[in-house]
Amino acid sequence: MKSYLSKMAQRTPEPPISWLMHAALARSRLISFAAGFTDNPSLPVARTRGLLNQILRSPKTGRPALQYGSTAGDPILRKLTASHLRKLDAQFSSSSFSWLEQKSRTRTRGKDKDEKIYSLEHLLITGGSQQLLYMAAEALCDEGDVVLVEDPTYFVYLGILQGRGLRARGVRLEPDGLDLAHLEKVLTSLKRSGDLRRVKLLYLVSYFQNPTGVTTSFEKKRGILKWLKQFERGAGHPIYLLEDAAYRELRFHGGDVPSALAVPGATGRVIYAGTFTKPFATGARVGYGILPEPLLTAVKHIKGNHDFGTANLLQQLFARALASGAHEKQVARLQKRYAHKARVMKRAMEKHFPPAVEWRAPAGGLYFWARLPKHISTGVRSKVFQAALKNDVLYVPGEICYADAPLRKRPNHEMRISFGSASEKDIREGIKRLGAVLNQLVK
Amino acid sequence: MKSYLSKMAQRTPEPPISWLMHAALARSRLISFAAGFTDNPSLPVARTRGLLNQILRSPKTGRPALQYGSTAGDPILRKLTASHLRKLDAQFSSSSFSWLEQKSRTRTRGKDKDEKIYSLEHLLITGGSQQLLYMAAEALCDEGDVVLVEDPTYFVYLGILQGRGLRARGVRLEPDGLDLAHLEKVLTSLKRSGDLRRVKLLYLVSYFQNPTGVTTSFEKKRGILKWLKQFERGAGHPIYLLEDAAYRELRFHGGDVPSALAVPGATGRVIYAGTFTKPFATGARVGYGILPEPLLTAVKHIKGNHDFGTANLLQQLFARALASGAHEKQVARLQKRYAHKARVMKRAMEKHFPPAVEWRAPAGGLYFWARLPKHISTGVRSKVFQAALKNDVLYVPGEICYADAPLRKRPNHEMRISFGSASEKDIREGIKRLGAVLNQLVK
Repeated sequence: MKSYLSKMAQRTPEPPISWLMHAALARSRLISFAAGFTDNPSLPVARTRGLLNQILRSPKTGRPALQYGSTAGDPILRKLTASHLRKLDAQFSSSSFSWLEQKSRTRTRGKDKDEKIYSLEHLLITGGSQQLLYMAAEALCDEGDVVLVEDPTYFVYLGILQGRGLRARGVRLEPDGLDLAHLEKVLTSLKRSGDLRRVKLLYLVSYFQNPTGVTTSFEKKRGILKWLKQFERGAGHPIYLLEDAAYRELRFHGGDVPSALAVPGATGRVIYAGTFTKPFATGARVGYGILPEPLLTAVKHIKGNHDFGTANLLQQLFARALASGAHEKQVARLQKRYAHKARVMKRAMEKHFPPAVEWRAPAGGLYFWARLPKHISTGVRSKVFQAALKNDVLYVPGEICYADAPLRKRPNHEMRISFGSASEKDIREGIKRLGAVLNQLVK
Repeated sequence: MKSYLSKMAQRTPEPPISWLMHAALARSRLISFAAGFTDNPSLPVARTRGLLNQILRSPKTGRPALQYGSTAGDPILRKLTASHLRKLDAQFSSSSFSWLEQKSRTRTRGKDKDEKIYSLEHLLITGGSQQLLYMAAEALCDEGDVVLVEDPTYFVYLGILQGRGLRARGVRLEPDGLDLAHLEKVLTSLKRSGDLRRVKLLYLVSYFQNPTGVTTSFEKKRGILKWLKQFERGAGHPIYLLEDAAYRELRFHGGDVPSALAVPGATGRVIYAGTFTKPFATGARVGYGILPEPLLTAVKHIKGNHDFGTANLLQQLFARALASGAHEKQVARLQKRYAHKARVMKRAMEKHFPPAVEWRAPAGGLYFWARLPKHISTGVRSKVFQAALKNDVLYVPGEICYADAPLRKRPNHEMRISFGSASEKDIREGIKRLGAVLNQLVK
């Protein structure tokens, strides 16, 4: 990269997914488990057509959809989204969701405050949830600041941090979310090194995580917020939790988990990033965020410079999809579809993967995460990756999902395997091919 | 703004247009000439519906439109856009467009290189042209760098620069574009002060400029590029020309002017930002850029972090609109419509504005620019603005379109008056009201 470009340009490398795509394009027989693309046959073509026809049937509804809107987004879509979220979080009245049961008067006031976050005033519509991740980093972090991430995490997010000159620090992941003891350890060590004041937020992919499929339990969310709060004094400022719920609706086993917004008293520290894209149609990129002040205002101003508002036509599409129940129907359809595809992949893995490779079937989302014995690398230059590519099958090397860490080498013996876009037939054939490679190279 | 937010957040103020909008919302009788909204009745509702129905009629074309695309954008749309632009620029074979006439072999080679810039490989689809303006600044400029702008210029662009901690330096504007002698003077003074190495680009709204309506002549584009080139040695790196052609298609008098891409040998220094939004439907935000390397790659990587690609459904819409001729038809319709509205505004101004107020009717775009006597302020706290608001009419104060300059106070006696969104009736009534205010306050 030429030296007269900005520091940001110098720091922003080619996204890893691009070269994975290039690799894919060159081979016509290739079965890709690498891309995060969604299932093609279940894309709601007729449903979308129907909704757009409703909007564009008359000038009365058609014109506003084809005109600029406001930077924050369409108020009706924001209202529908906020109440959709409130409903998702409020269906829990278990002990894990204690604000619904609070009795004392002060607690009730706190509850009111907590509930107010589910309102259009706190909601911002974005060009996919990715844009919110980007702008949250812009609004909170200066060069050299520290962002805590799951270890491993969504690799495109690591790209954002790298581009902005931010330091990612990984926190170990357990089957129900972050290892809280390790979180405390990381925060303590940052405090000791004097870096705590540079810690601005913790980024959490809380549902069917990309890449591992792990869902963070509500107890863990509460625990994370407790630890962040505890270290705020040392930091000298708030430490936010950025909850990326991109896969929340793509659940096909078990119940939903309340978001971190539902942790009593925590709404002032939680940024919630959601999307209509993944559970409906990825070609119509609309996401949203719930943000507390002063972040909401800061991000809104920044969005004014990015694009002063997401395409109104797409916003009207999702407003109709939510109001008419079409969104809910499509989500239900996708859940069944992905449940089926995950089952197909699971059976193929049971049949073809050697026992030395560990993996677990996810309860939602798009990904299986497989772990090879520690000494066997899965990186792009590894024997495994190259043999897989030669046999026309592609996965995401686990390595790229880890932040650089001062004290440990990035684990490089894992792989993310997506069942999102491949057909059932290709899932069976691709896993068979990958299994053959693994059987040969993993003893 | 809280001090723990990023420096960018601290620097990014509420966009001026937001408080203008707030002012508007509070008064139901208000006629706004402030917003850059486009004409409502001519929004192509039926046309858009027809195109979307074509796309979503079958799974074959519908599914790709509802799936993710690539970061650079749909290849078919990029190809159509590149040839649309090539055609626009190539219709000129006058002496002002000399590369079409070059004879010698070396010159022909240069010509080939120049023409290659009009290709899908150099074209990037963005979420409106605004996103390209933002990312070009990200890719080129570090905090403290200098961007040359027209004086006055598009105020949202000044907001981008302010947010990123960049210094804007204004260059005087003449009726046919930048004052080249002043450009030389500004560059020389930057060289003297040691700031030339911080100069990364010159931003030019080249067609029916926002806010003045001025169109930059081809000779001036050539002159600008010549001066930038001349100072590159002192800068130690390329100085780019960012040509914002957002209003190019909204022309209703006179002929088109070739873009700076058509200046012989200049393609390596020109970033061209265009949009489908303004001349078709502002609710379907798709823009595009032509960029030379290494900028193209840098901006593409940065876009990977912003959103990894603009909504595919909207891209397919514009690909169809271009291929079917629907885009061209809508542009022709808009040109007529805006010509009419500009005429209505012109007549009303002739009738109601006092002779002490200077203004000129534009040949395209959305704006009239009026100049009051120097001692009469038009800023938001001025008598003129307040009296106008009290009489339910709103304009953009000229002041906010000027960069801060070390040696001069920002001119504050002008106003941008848009005929974009107001109806003919409202244009007549609003100009009458504004005229009454001016007649009272301008002697």
